[in-house]
Amino acid sequence: MAKVGIIGSKGRMGQALVDAINEAGLEHAGGVDKGDDIAGLAAASDVLVDFSSPHALETNLAACNFAKKPIVIGTTGLEERHHWLIDDAAQDIAVLQTGNTSLGVTMLAALVKEAASRLGADWDIEIVEMHHRMKVDAPSGTALLLGEAAAAGRYVDLADNSERGRDGITGARKEGAIGFASLRGGTVAGDHSVILAGNEESITLSHRAENRMIFARGAVKAAIWLMQQKPGRYNMPEVLGL
Amino acid sequence: MAKVGIIGSKGRMGQALVDAINEAGLEHAGGVDKGDDIAGLAAASDVLVDFSSPHALETNLAACNFAKKPIVIGTTGLEERHHWLIDDAAQDIAVLQTGNTSLGVTMLAALVKEAASRLGADWDIEIVEMHHRMKVDAPSGTALLLGEAAAAGRYVDLADNSERGRDGITGARKEGAIGFASLRGGTVAGDHSVILAGNEESITLSHRAENRMIFARGAVKAAIWLMQQKPGRYNMPEVLGL
Amino acid sequence: MAKVGIIGSKGRMGQALVDAINEAGLEHAGGVDKGDDIAGLAAASDVLVDFSSPHALETNLAACNFAKKPIVIGTTGLEERHHWLIDDAAQDIAVLQTGNTSLGVTMLAALVKEAASRLGADWDIEIVEMHHRMKVDAPSGTALLLGEAAAAGRYVDLADNSERGRDGITGARKEGAIGFASLRGGTVAGDHSVILAGNEESITLSHRAENRMIFARGAVKAAIWLMQQKPGRYNMPEVLGL
Amino acid sequence: MAKVGIIGSKGRMGQALVDAINEAGLEHAGGVDKGDDIAGLAAASDVLVDFSSPHALETNLAACNFAKKPIVIGTTGLEERHHWLIDDAAQDIAVLQTGNTSLGVTMLAALVKEAASRLGADWDIEIVEMHHRMKVDAPSGTALLLGEAAAAGRYVDLADNSERGRDGITGARKEGAIGFASLRGGTVAGDHSVILAGNEESITLSHRAENRMIFARGAVKAAIWLMQQKPGRYNMPEVLGL
Repeated sequence: MAKVGIIGSKGRMGQALVDAINEAGLEHAGGVDKGDDIAGLAAASDVLVDFSSPHALETNLAACNFAKKPIVIGTTGLEERHHWLIDDAAQDIAVLQTGNTSLGVTMLAALVKEAASRLGADWDIEIVEMHHRMKVDAPSGTALLLGEAAAAGRYVDLADNSERGRDGITGARKEGAIGFASLRGGTVAGDHSVILAGNEESITLSHRAENRMIFARGAVKAAIWLMQQKPGRYNMPEVLGL
Repeated sequence: MAKVGIIGSKGRMGQALVDAINEAGLEHAGGVDKGDDIAGLAAASDVLVDFSSPHALETNLAACNFAKKPIVIGTTGLEERHHWLIDDAAQDIAVLQTGNTSLGVTMLAALVKEAASRLGADWDIEIVEMHHRMKVDAPSGTALLLGEAAAAGRYVDLADNSERGRDGITGARKEGAIGFASLRGGTVAGDHSVILAGNEESITLSHRAENRMIFARGAVKAAIWLMQQKPGRYNMPEVLGL
Repeated sequence: MAKVGIIGSKGRMGQALVDAINEAGLEHAGGVDKGDDIAGLAAASDVLVDFSSPHALETNLAACNFAKKPIVIGTTGLEERHHWLIDDAAQDIAVLQTGNTSLGVTMLAALVKEAASRLGADWDIEIVEMHHRMKVDAPSGTALLLGEAAAAGRYVDLADNSERGRDGITGARKEGAIGFASLRGGTVAGDHSVILAGNEESITLSHRAENRMIFARGAVKAAIWLMQQKPGRYNMPEVLGL
Repeated sequence: MAKVGIIGSKGRMGQALVDAINEAGLEHAGGVDKGDDIAGLAAASDVLVDFSSPHALETNLAACNFAKKPIVIGTTGLEERHHWLIDDAAQDIAVLQTGNTSLGVTMLAALVKEAASRLGADWDIEIVEMHHRMKVDAPSGTALLLGEAAAAGRYVDLADNSERGRDGITGARKEGAIGFASLRGGTVAGDHSVILAGNEESITLSHRAENRMIFARGAVKAAIWLMQQKPGRYNMPEVLGL
């Protein structure tokens, strides 16, 4: 019976991950948080799931690399340098990093890519998300993941085309821009909409998470799949065969 | 300069079609309504666009067949026997029948088929539409078109799996059902949503028409394309190369 | 410490009610289901909460009346004769019947009444709801409650003005109609939207329940309030002082 | 027959205003734009409607004041100093300034105020709007108007409680904040939603404009009403008797 270690076990995803590990009939190898013995957990686990914080990523990857254990990274708020760390670690171990571990979001991203690819640049793309009042970063990792899907569909770079945090005199929308907006409030587990707004018609592609279990289940599903893979960097569509 | 004849020229789409024909740089061959000289119009046109009524379909097809002119049919509320009439006519002339002539809806239907195909039967499919208070049939032709896309994605027959007009003690939802609901009110040009509702998450794929011009433009685009085709039955995705 | 008895304890609301009773610092007097000893439970409780079935209502009311205990009725699918039974019982005991026990829905109903009252009959009213795939009745009790609020705002009778289960050739919308549509799928705890569709603009007033706890908490809040009331029939806005 | 002068006649609202003036059976006194003879138009009109730009406001008010003519101001993007100018002019002439001239939005603002007043500060308020790709300011005047309604319902100052342009590491939501987010794309005439997000439930109050005519009609309705008023500053709810 495979043992799954949880990094970030006291965060909002911690209990949901324990439940999902049990639901899947796996063993919970234990959980660690900031300052805890991550090296010990890596040694004791067959695979790790990390929903902690970007600050801890370097340490977490080093521990997994030392123990030669695969790791699923669901932490959000990653910057470019974090992605370099992941690419580096992926030369030695299997790493799956994703802004969202749910099946539905993974499907949605595929649809967004397809629509962006087919509809052409006169369909403006906007991404709006809502999360609970405690979320500290904006846009959500999932919103960025959907933005990447839209940018990939258009063969453009997201960073060069993002419009974020609109406020004040912004001027007209730039052609080809991908806009982001973030709502915060209540206990919302995660709503995302991608709007493709054309001339006198629009298409909206949305996902709603009712609670955190869908992310925990998806992360555990990814962990099971990742144990079978060679070193390298992976993503959710591969897990789901999309 | 191609001449386009309008059948149903006094209906809600009539003026929009005239505008779209002008916008496209084509010539308006004239319009007819119930009791008018459809045979004369067919003779005078290079292609016809029909947004009239199911009752007139047999006469309209006969006139186009006699004149050997292609016809775009956007009439809604068609029944099985109307589709037989169309199949029959399509042996001699080019006929494009569609529940919706807009680019956005055609794209949406492709996304719905894809999602229905990938997500499996534990994602329940519901289709809800809203139209202006004058619309006389429910569900809309577009809702049925989206239902056909969902059914095709699942390799099932829509007629065998539809749940329509829920009211009273309905019992639990049938596995594999595709549900339809229709809202009517105001001056809404046409809103459609396809909801794929899974376990603790859902995906919604929507289209909104701001006004009727998008349908008229799409119908004229289809008419231009149809003039180049051999006899046969065609549909919107072919026009748009989807 | 007040003792709350649960009728319908094995249904979808059963466990949520136990949790809400504990959360509120009250005592759980026990739960019964079809065929169980409802008279015994009524005797042992200070107040009862009923989320069972319309079929059981007469028996439930008789037991509460015999024991002279107040009862909160959240059962949906009630017909006119059930309301007569409630009116009758309310001459001897305090009865609160509601299609929805949540604070948010109670607020929404007040807003719907206000909007319906102010906007006039050229704003068409439509009510659409979505619930999980196991729900057996349509429209939901909450949709009907919102319909009653709209009808009250217009000083008309809901039964005389409802349009339900639209399907086929319906003809144009009737002036003053209040339309209902029901979606079913997935695990949706309860979404309701009231659309007021005017000429070239519309207003939508919506509520979303993330899970069943909001109904259980509201029911327990109502039960606490109801213990202080004289015999009579009450409703949620009174509990919340709206 | 009253003569209505249009300031900003070449802008997006210009033609719609001419249509609405005709529809209402009034006379169009002419229109001016940047650099035109605003004093001449003021002299020739019985009332003026201004949908131009904040930069022109001082000149426009001076011309109306000199001619002692009432003015409806629908210009968006106003800052505090513009409101001082309006207050000043309102000592001598009747001035109605509003972020939105539609009946539906005016109704929505009243509902938002009521909901914000009743629901308490544990219901987080978020306002999201979408407009066409050419709009240059964010949030929209209407979004701010709805924010003012929410703030008034809570007896707080909007400026002290706004969260705008969320992006990056924002930290958790501030208690009592009213959040704003702006989407831009396509030809959307104006969508606004106010979300009240509580614990495990939420209420959303939305308005959709199908096209610009609703604003033009409301502005003309306001102009007719304003001609009967004494000098002072007025708003839309007064026009509609809300």
